[in-house]
Amino acid sequence: MTEERDVCGKTGAPAFALFDSGMGGLSVLRHFLDLFPEEDFLYLGDMARFPYGSKSRETICRFAVEDASLLLRFRPRTLVVACFTVSSQSLDILVDRFPGTRVVGMVEAGARAALAATRSGHVGVLGTEGTIRSGAYPTVLGRLGGREARVFGISCPLFAPMVEEGWIDGEIPERVAREYLAPFIEGRAPEVDTIILGCTHYPPLLPMLRRILPGITFVDPGYELAHSELLRPEPGRGQGKGQVSFLVTDGRERFMRVGQHLLGRSVEHVRETSVPSVDFSFV
Amino acid sequence: MTEERDVCGKTGAPAFALFDSGMGGLSVLRHFLDLFPEEDFLYLGDMARFPYGSKSRETICRFAVEDASLLLRFRPRTLVVACFTVSSQSLDILVDRFPGTRVVGMVEAGARAALAATRSGHVGVLGTEGTIRSGAYPTVLGRLGGREARVFGISCPLFAPMVEEGWIDGEIPERVAREYLAPFIEGRAPEVDTIILGCTHYPPLLPMLRRILPGITFVDPGYELAHSELLRPEPGRGQGKGQVSFLVTDGRERFMRVGQHLLGRSVEHVRETSVPSVDFSFV
Repeated sequence: MTEERDVCGKTGAPAFALFDSGMGGLSVLRHFLDLFPEEDFLYLGDMARFPYGSKSRETICRFAVEDASLLLRFRPRTLVVACFTVSSQSLDILVDRFPGTRVVGMVEAGARAALAATRSGHVGVLGTEGTIRSGAYPTVLGRLGGREARVFGISCPLFAPMVEEGWIDGEIPERVAREYLAPFIEGRAPEVDTIILGCTHYPPLLPMLRRILPGITFVDPGYELAHSELLRPEPGRGQGKGQVSFLVTDGRERFMRVGQHLLGRSVEHVRETSVPSVDFSFV
Repeated sequence: MTEERDVCGKTGAPAFALFDSGMGGLSVLRHFLDLFPEEDFLYLGDMARFPYGSKSRETICRFAVEDASLLLRFRPRTLVVACFTVSSQSLDILVDRFPGTRVVGMVEAGARAALAATRSGHVGVLGTEGTIRSGAYPTVLGRLGGREARVFGISCPLFAPMVEEGWIDGEIPERVAREYLAPFIEGRAPEVDTIILGCTHYPPLLPMLRRILPGITFVDPGYELAHSELLRPEPGRGQGKGQVSFLVTDGRERFMRVGQHLLGRSVEHVRETSVPSVDFSFV
């Protein structure tokens, strides 16, 4: 427990532990910090293996189990999977594997908000290859919205590296966005009136996306998830010290430098660590 | 030795084993296959941890030692580090750690070719953040070319994901390229007459880059390395069966589908595997 005490020593178990393949999940943590300023948080960014979005489901599940195993040593009250790729492909695996812990992902809160916002029942989703390929959004939207929900998914592999490069508006980002959004711009999906940002890297693109598609309602699932947690009664709330700690598997300096734009404030108390190897296989 | 026999069973030890963080190194293998059609090859793509370019030197060294350890089980005559990020930051580590094996990287052959081509002695290098930050090119060009060699390095983080997306020409790739190449286009580095493509993902961009900068000589280090190997006398040459085998740590289907564009032919005989964990630390 040495490391556990070093990281969360003064505050005990955090209310929320979040993890992501890298720094993208900071755009989720941002909303949690806004809404729960008095709670303690622990965030893990698996920068050494970033990104997860283009990798296979088996590999993503293994990484997710390893990341969660590390965070659960700190006994958080809630584990937040702040990564859409993992949320859409491995949430069931984590829930099965760690029955004693409350585990929440990114997909459901955003899907509920999209269904509340849409008038046509036609919802667009932007995400990584893995998230779109998983079919998680059609499944969840179908379950929550019934047969009327129609989903139009588009994978946008260049958005994440573009945001990490700091290119969030201007000529090149707009050209790239117009390429990916062409089905909406050109009216090939005319009934879509609501689009879910299905990747933690995309919120910084929001002002530009709104300008390109002014008639569309955009949903930021990080905001929706933090809000839904706020509405949930939970004993022990508000007993933290407002402490936020970060663990990364690589690139501490880069995480702090680039991550502040996703978090909306400076990123401090960052330690490098390694995640435990876990045997994982579908077979 | 079961796996070793399965992969290279009919042919014994390969003449060349190559590895890269993913599929980029296929653009290097391509030139080797052209020049050594009768030899046997083994290629490892560490797709599960791709990309290496934005990660720290310690992590890159650890991954490199793990990748090399796997390939050396097959007892290749030459180990080719077909990844600029590893070549520029970890070649010395691999040479030290595996003294019984000939290890060659991507930096030196391209640097020699650039020095032969330049008249001004001013050489540009395009590469990942890691390759440019490493300073490997200034070091090697300085050693080979003396004081007159001047190096102008530009990191181009969006080029690799763009090539993997299949965007190698057209409006968006050209805008992105013009952004990165602005110092050359706008005359801020007027004496640069030769540019090294310092990343295995970049050769498919060559026709476009030549159109944008028609007065510049571009160097493809994969071609130069394969050529320099051809000129080197080696006993046992030409005794292979022309067999090419591939190992990947993830994404077999994607490796075959996208990789054929980098290899210039179809990618077959691909097996998924995992690399051994190795303790590695600078301390």
